[in-house]
Amino acid sequence: MRNSAPPRHAAYERIRSDGGELVIGGRTVTAICREAGRTPLYAYDLAAISERVAELRRRVPQEIHLHYAVKANPMPAVVGHIAGLVDGFDVASAGELRVALAAGMDAQRISFAGPGKSTAELADAVEAGITVHVESEREIRELYRIADETRRRPALAVRVNPDFQLKTAGMKMGGGPAQFGIDAEVVPELLRRLDTGRVEFRGFHIFAGSQNLSAASIIEAQNSTIALAERLAKDAPAPVVDLNMGGGFGIPYFPGEQPLDLAAVGDNLRDIVKRARQSLPQARLIIELGRYLVGEAGYYVCRVVDRKLSRGRVFLVTDGGLHHHLAASGNFGQVIRKNYPVVIGNRMDEAPAEAASVVGPLCTPLDLLADNMMLPVSKPGDLVVVLQSGAYGFTASPRGFLSHPEPLEIAV
Amino acid sequence: MRNSAPPRHAAYERIRSDGGELVIGGRTVTAICREAGRTPLYAYDLAAISERVAELRRRVPQEIHLHYAVKANPMPAVVGHIAGLVDGFDVASAGELRVALAAGMDAQRISFAGPGKSTAELADAVEAGITVHVESEREIRELYRIADETRRRPALAVRVNPDFQLKTAGMKMGGGPAQFGIDAEVVPELLRRLDTGRVEFRGFHIFAGSQNLSAASIIEAQNSTIALAERLAKDAPAPVVDLNMGGGFGIPYFPGEQPLDLAAVGDNLRDIVKRARQSLPQARLIIELGRYLVGEAGYYVCRVVDRKLSRGRVFLVTDGGLHHHLAASGNFGQVIRKNYPVVIGNRMDEAPAEAASVVGPLCTPLDLLADNMMLPVSKPGDLVVVLQSGAYGFTASPRGFLSHPEPLEIAV
Repeated sequence: MRNSAPPRHAAYERIRSDGGELVIGGRTVTAICREAGRTPLYAYDLAAISERVAELRRRVPQEIHLHYAVKANPMPAVVGHIAGLVDGFDVASAGELRVALAAGMDAQRISFAGPGKSTAELADAVEAGITVHVESEREIRELYRIADETRRRPALAVRVNPDFQLKTAGMKMGGGPAQFGIDAEVVPELLRRLDTGRVEFRGFHIFAGSQNLSAASIIEAQNSTIALAERLAKDAPAPVVDLNMGGGFGIPYFPGEQPLDLAAVGDNLRDIVKRARQSLPQARLIIELGRYLVGEAGYYVCRVVDRKLSRGRVFLVTDGGLHHHLAASGNFGQVIRKNYPVVIGNRMDEAPAEAASVVGPLCTPLDLLADNMMLPVSKPGDLVVVLQSGAYGFTASPRGFLSHPEPLEIAV
Repeated sequence: MRNSAPPRHAAYERIRSDGGELVIGGRTVTAICREAGRTPLYAYDLAAISERVAELRRRVPQEIHLHYAVKANPMPAVVGHIAGLVDGFDVASAGELRVALAAGMDAQRISFAGPGKSTAELADAVEAGITVHVESEREIRELYRIADETRRRPALAVRVNPDFQLKTAGMKMGGGPAQFGIDAEVVPELLRRLDTGRVEFRGFHIFAGSQNLSAASIIEAQNSTIALAERLAKDAPAPVVDLNMGGGFGIPYFPGEQPLDLAAVGDNLRDIVKRARQSLPQARLIIELGRYLVGEAGYYVCRVVDRKLSRGRVFLVTDGGLHHHLAASGNFGQVIRKNYPVVIGNRMDEAPAEAASVVGPLCTPLDLLADNMMLPVSKPGDLVVVLQSGAYGFTASPRGFLSHPEPLEIAV
């Protein structure tokens, strides 16, 4: 497949087709939709997730623990599959904790981060025996109270709001004032006051941003992270046994974006492992990835219902849209709307021949899956597929909007 | 209540408090939350909706039919209440049609607009006996087929993509190429071909945009609408009995925005009624309003869970956020994020004393309900209330994001 003009979507390089049909997890998109019985749907290629983890294992030193951030895609079949591949999970709510435990992940390898954890959520976390990444003094006080009430000794790590930022990240989450974590500069005093009779100190969670495609930026952030952890460890009441270094590994969504140079990041992690062997000898070094594990394995598939020509512009009206895939519509943190990679799943052998806009059934011009994009000439019944849709798709979309049927989710 | 610096939110003028407590539908926000048993919640003030309709009835000539666009808020209790106040409903999906019929609205007063109606939705509409606002040639062909199969005579109106645009509208939906309706310039030929043996022609639906606060713009659009309808009627196969002129009446969300001058719009509608009595003597003139009926009657209420100071900035971390109220977070069609009107519902008598950011529990900096806003000094347990939340709130939000509990919806 070739667009008429550069820059292109990097995702087009990795997709496979057979007889003009997009192949997902070894099956054609038409077969998947026929067996599902209806569209729209999200299809997740479990083998692609396995391959991604295998690639990480090859590139990243074996001392690095890989964690999955369940928030990226909490579908039970996906989480259950990943449970057998990674070394732990991070959850962001009591709901995600239930999914993580149901997937069979050992509680000792689950951590819980997120600002504003409720009293009930903290109690659930302690009851389950997972590690709480505390984001404020209040959460520590709550854990003391739960310890007193339950005679358990909650495990905690301190989530640190770093004094540096992940440069060029899609989402910057450190360096300035933030709701995330405890400011690095006040952590030492807090550590000195920590009552380790009541809570077990396990380490730090330092996370500077997400969706970054620059290996140099990630390397710089990782080096700053290890340095900050070493500095903070001096005031810790016990050795650091967990150091969650976050992730931030991005995937290419938009034209011209290139995949992350994982080899470079892996090489740097080798240096960090060596360094930590001296400076933080008991620490498990954890990389937490969500989008990077599942994002490229997911496909959003909807069907063309109508083809309209309005004042010289072609509109493919589908049975899916913004309500199912908010990010692809450009309404989820994008400042300037750009097209996700989109293909006509049953016309993979046909050259793009016309500019078309792919829209949904909602009564708003925001409901736009592709804006004036070069595509093969398409008609009702054809399958529009949005690539790079495995993370922050189904759950991050307003599926009740206009009371249309929900999309299906299928693990292939 | 007073902000330290202009411009202010117009919504602050109309809210009421008692003993420092925001009053919604005659009850304090604290009482509402206590009885609900938990937060967050959406509270809809049914009396305020009644008052809004009464105001419209006073300002707008009695010949104008008021329709409610169910998509703005499809909560059954809200729709049921409005069914007794207005002259008809517009629905945008089969799901909304079910809500409309369950609310007791007569099928003859329900219309169905929206691009990409599915074959099943069109069959449901014909079966129910509502009027289909056809948006493409394909939809007309489908209605012919349904007519042949069912021996019914489906009622249709032609949704027109006008050749003008609603100036200064929040959402422009006409004037250029669009997925909405059939381009005005091709409608005459289409009307001449319409097979009225198989379908009943009822009229037109002409809608140029939404969320407009300028009476002058709305008046100009209404005048253009009636002129376009008169022009198109010349080629119609039967007299126009329904003319849906859309709505587009906005409500003030952001600082400095002023309420629509309804009196001016009403005066113009009087002229249009006179004119249509000559030019379209059998036509019911319909104004379709969603947001304008319910937007100001709704309140999103969440509770402060944590108060954090990070690098000089105050964060109020709540149990609600972007996942419940996407529009208030600034991620639903806003180009530049602005604050919705936000108050501390249990501190209405206290002056704003500090700049604070109201955030939710999600692991993203997008989860922001108020950015650096002057508020009374607040602490955990306090109730943050987002005003102007009755339309496109609950259903237009990604409520499954991060697997937190859903907000309640309460009609007060």
